[in-house]
Amino acid sequence: MADLAAIDRYLAEHQREWIAELRELCAVPSVSARHQGIEECAKLVARMLERRGFAVEVCATGGHPVVLGHAAGTNRARTLLFYNHYDVQPPEPLELWDSPPFQLTEREGAVFARGSKDDKGEFVCRLAALDAVRAVTGSYPCDITWLAEGEEEIGSPHLPDWVERNQSRLRADAAVWEEGGIEVDETPIIRLGARGLLYVELSVKVISRDAHSGQANLLPNAAWRLVWALAALKGPDERVLIPGFYDAVRQPTDREEKLLRAAPKGAADIRDEFGLEQLLGGITDVNRAYFTPTANLAGIGGGYQGEGSKTVIPARAVAKLDFRLVPDQDPVDINAKLRRHLDSAGFADVAIELLGAERPGITDPDAAVVRLNGEIAAEIYGKPARVTPLTGGTTPMFIFTERGVPVVAPGVGWGAMNRAHSPNEFMRLKDFERAARHLARLAVRFAQAD
Amino acid sequence: MADLAAIDRYLAEHQREWIAELRELCAVPSVSARHQGIEECAKLVARMLERRGFAVEVCATGGHPVVLGHAAGTNRARTLLFYNHYDVQPPEPLELWDSPPFQLTEREGAVFARGSKDDKGEFVCRLAALDAVRAVTGSYPCDITWLAEGEEEIGSPHLPDWVERNQSRLRADAAVWEEGGIEVDETPIIRLGARGLLYVELSVKVISRDAHSGQANLLPNAAWRLVWALAALKGPDERVLIPGFYDAVRQPTDREEKLLRAAPKGAADIRDEFGLEQLLGGITDVNRAYFTPTANLAGIGGGYQGEGSKTVIPARAVAKLDFRLVPDQDPVDINAKLRRHLDSAGFADVAIELLGAERPGITDPDAAVVRLNGEIAAEIYGKPARVTPLTGGTTPMFIFTERGVPVVAPGVGWGAMNRAHSPNEFMRLKDFERAARHLARLAVRFAQAD
Repeated sequence: MADLAAIDRYLAEHQREWIAELRELCAVPSVSARHQGIEECAKLVARMLERRGFAVEVCATGGHPVVLGHAAGTNRARTLLFYNHYDVQPPEPLELWDSPPFQLTEREGAVFARGSKDDKGEFVCRLAALDAVRAVTGSYPCDITWLAEGEEEIGSPHLPDWVERNQSRLRADAAVWEEGGIEVDETPIIRLGARGLLYVELSVKVISRDAHSGQANLLPNAAWRLVWALAALKGPDERVLIPGFYDAVRQPTDREEKLLRAAPKGAADIRDEFGLEQLLGGITDVNRAYFTPTANLAGIGGGYQGEGSKTVIPARAVAKLDFRLVPDQDPVDINAKLRRHLDSAGFADVAIELLGAERPGITDPDAAVVRLNGEIAAEIYGKPARVTPLTGGTTPMFIFTERGVPVVAPGVGWGAMNRAHSPNEFMRLKDFERAARHLARLAVRFAQAD
Repeated sequence: MADLAAIDRYLAEHQREWIAELRELCAVPSVSARHQGIEECAKLVARMLERRGFAVEVCATGGHPVVLGHAAGTNRARTLLFYNHYDVQPPEPLELWDSPPFQLTEREGAVFARGSKDDKGEFVCRLAALDAVRAVTGSYPCDITWLAEGEEEIGSPHLPDWVERNQSRLRADAAVWEEGGIEVDETPIIRLGARGLLYVELSVKVISRDAHSGQANLLPNAAWRLVWALAALKGPDERVLIPGFYDAVRQPTDREEKLLRAAPKGAADIRDEFGLEQLLGGITDVNRAYFTPTANLAGIGGGYQGEGSKTVIPARAVAKLDFRLVPDQDPVDINAKLRRHLDSAGFADVAIELLGAERPGITDPDAAVVRLNGEIAAEIYGKPARVTPLTGGTTPMFIFTERGVPVVAPGVGWGAMNRAHSPNEFMRLKDFERAARHLARLAVRFAQAD
């Protein structure tokens, strides 16, 4: 048995070194939506793994490269796979950042930057955990495979195919997924599943150029067309109007119902965070709500958006929509239904560009590694973990869960407080240290199990 | 009687000088929506008038200044008032301009710049007409009052009140309005009226900051709220749904019906210009359509509008709406009805900011100056003018028509071809010359009438 106290000590004593590595990583503005800094960031991730004895390949995928690393450990019979992503969300709106988004800045026990938490902070925390285990025991406890992709924030469009083609290099007994953490009240969280995603851009062009609005009786208006098309997709009651949208939605199983009943309701924290009297539709059970799919209008734009007034008829307008999908919805199916619905509602002129498609994924709550992860969480944080069967967000967990590889996800997150995807994203240093201890124990004890 | 042939010769021989003045005027980016270059442009307009013997005052209005000029003429018993505006529309989208928007560029017999036609080209054309009359006859033919405002493109918010307070300085027997011109087939146009305008910005803020769209079940979405609020204002059948919106709309009078029957239908040119199979709702009589009010969505924006995808719930969204109003609608009344409708439709959270309010205005088709203007148009262009009772656009003509001052509007326009409010706005030099001849004759003969 490894000396866990020595590992914890190592983690406490060397934190500045990992934060320095995180600073270097966050300085690369790897915004996948704009294809910025991607190659540079992939190479930096590769160097960080190579420095630790991994054999690394930066693999072409047809999109942004996957960084794939392998390292041998003491127990060659077991492989633990780490999944992370090195891309980040765009930093806008820039004016709301208190420090430059790509310059890791420390204040009040936390580090601030785009990616400081999602997902560069998580990645470096895992490096820390393995560094500590190797420093104390002399080797990694089992074989380690690391998969870091560069398109998670745009819906991982090339990952499933790449995984399909590279099955032999990805064999694993368990996977440690992207991110995890604790509730605001510091209760550890175990999330067993992630929703799927369909991300589309809707656009409509109705006239050859913008026109003077004195002609508004005469000419079609792209912004109005788009507003009406969107209103045909969902009304103020939040019910999605696409025929067949809910067909494949399955109800929570008995096992999931049991987990939901034991899970926190979670509404109060989110209400407070966003300054709301109540959540949408009066929702009180957040985890149950995640079993319902969504249609989110992530962006809309057309015509004049500057200061004051301009009397113009927009020739073109664009909207971005993301649908969070639940088991057993399929984004390909939903996209086809969306097209049919727009056509039949009179909006054949509204074009759909597919920007992302991921299936939902749920891991087996009774897998040995899931139970082990829960035991360790209780040790580290001093109280039992809360288990939620499905999270609101999306991560391509399905590429492993659909092949029977169980997935766990300890991490540095602190409730929904870290402002992932928003200005002033941050990670607390104490969360970094505890998550690293959690991950180190998980690797050590996973390697010993059979 | 003035020597009209000598005036025409003078206009032909000195055109370069006026185009040089227009270049200087267009170089000032007097974008009223952004309050740019306003003082500078007002001063330049004042200097241009002073150079011509006008007594000029740059008058405070509470908004952008009005330039007011007076010059005495041979017949002191009659006053002709010129109305122009020195502000322009924003130049965006910049990438669609073939030459810099604020650098007057000549090609193929035309000059291109923002304002080259609307309204700086019109203003300079009138200077040319009066310069020629004075050069040939030694003086202006009658008293001239010039009113150049700086807020026309944002709905002239301060002009009506300023006019009310300055009635004694604005007495006139007739007014020459902002702009005019000819059809694409070179038939002169006489427009007797202009629609009113209500311009509002709708905005909604639902949460304290943008959020991760994994929480789209839980949090309200500003972009969706705005889409639904807009869809409650007008549907795809183009009927405005605000209760009482059409109450004050009067049908064309018998006199207007007669004018409409004689007026061109105008649909084909507009279809061709914008690449359409048919106009909205299959409209074939454009001039009749202008007797119907509009609700135009001039702009909408919220959430992520960049490249690719971002999974975000917009905290705030904004739309710009302009309503073109017909006799006898009142923008103050319509704005109140809009507020009540949003409230009763469940959108009390959508804020309205009033950005412009102008009443419709129609001049008397039987006024002597209107008939005189028609006779001169036929002389200059070799065919009788087409008379339209109401135009699609807006100009605060009501400030004079409501006081019984008849309004005429010869000008440099060429159908809807000049791209006013769009990239590559231009004025043809031959239109400039003919409009100047028209205006010179109008001034001379108006001064002689009684």
